Amino acid sequence: MSELIIWTYDWVPEGPRGFVRDLRLRWACEEADLDYEVRTIPFDGRETNHLERQPFGQVPFLNDGELEIFESGAGLLHLARKSDKLMPRDPVGEAETLQWTIAALNSMEMVTVPWWFLNICGDENNGLTGWMGQRLDHIEQILSEREWLAAERFTVADLLMADVLRVPKVRAFGDRPVTEAYVARATDRPSFKKAQAGQIALFEAADVKRTG
Amino acid sequence: MSELIIWTYDWVPEGPRGFVRDLRLRWACEEADLDYEVRTIPFDGRETNHLERQPFGQVPFLNDGELEIFESGAGLLHLARKSDKLMPRDPVGEAETLQWTIAALNSMEMVTVPWWFLNICGDENNGLTGWMGQRLDHIEQILSEREWLAAERFTVADLLMADVLRVPKVRAFGDRPVTEAYVARATDRPSFKKAQAGQIALFEAADVKRTG
Repeated sequence: MSELIIWTYDWVPEGPRGFVRDLRLRWACEEADLDYEVRTIPFDGRETNHLERQPFGQVPFLNDGELEIFESGAGLLHLARKSDKLMPRDPVGEAETLQWTIAALNSMEMVTVPWWFLNICGDENNGLTGWMGQRLDHIEQILSEREWLAAERFTVADLLMADVLRVPKVRAFGDRPVTEAYVARATDRPSFKKAQAGQIALFEAADVKRTG
Repeated sequence: MSELIIWTYDWVPEGPRGFVRDLRLRWACEEADLDYEVRTIPFDGRETNHLERQPFGQVPFLNDGELEIFESGAGLLHLARKSDKLMPRDPVGEAETLQWTIAALNSMEMVTVPWWFLNICGDENNGLTGWMGQRLDHIEQILSEREWLAAERFTVADLLMADVLRVPKVRAFGDRPVTEAYVARATDRPSFKKAQAGQIALFEAADVKRTG
């Protein structure tokens, strides 16, 4: 039995397949060669069926021995302690990785996710559009000067930022070739492909059970 | 000279005084009895005058010897390593504190800040209102079962969550007495009051220079 257990839903509709956030933890484990298994909770009733484990009714959460950790960002920072492939061990490299990990969560995703949410609800020209453009322009500028965000190499900060930026509607927001190349560079990694394929296979297998 | 230097603007208008995010780092230093000083960059021209230090043109950022760290959440997690007053040292307490710190940044603030932004732009009944209510209801439920979020004591996760929840428009969104009592409990701490008074005093002193 693996010490690391990543929890996700037992099924999701086709739309979010390949984008559910357990993928972030799978990807990190693949990058760092950490042994893990994936277990599931029922998608049906998800709003209330696991509130004692994830207080907002979301996935993923992570078991590591006696520990249980929710929030994909917290899971990533926890996994990053297990391998310098995810986060350098020198103080400067570590601080850079930490700040860019938090930037992905609290400067980028704080704009891209609500913008996306309003957009899919039908409000395409919503009040967050200007802010969204500014943030994406800043990232385009930053990435024009470097290959990876922190420590001059791929880290968990890139894993997270690329996952934030690869959402189709975010990618389609304006023409930002440098960001597009960055997303392609990150998602071309075998570890990403393996993690994504694993998630999609799980949900596809569940289709059979659901309809069978 | 202190090793820890917190950078903020040299002045802000009256509205945001007491809420600029350098307060989070001041508060953490006060809680942990860490020696720090505050330095400033010009408010005028802030969009572009410090992009090499904070790539989104925001404050705060933190110096710690050779390190420079932006993102208030990253600064808090960095400071939390310096004192167990901010984060317990046992693995379970540490994991709980980490997950709730990230929850404040990526599950609460990802909704409250864009909602607040749309609200002050005049869109009071905006498309994030339902989501906002759900998240605040979840927090109300969680806080009805515990005094502090993690490890059964005040941690950096409470410092951050209380700072997210104390924003006047967020406090006024519905009637949530448990959350209100939590915010009062956190902001009644002498460390918060000292940090807030320090920020307000800096900006008030700058008024004199600006008009003198």
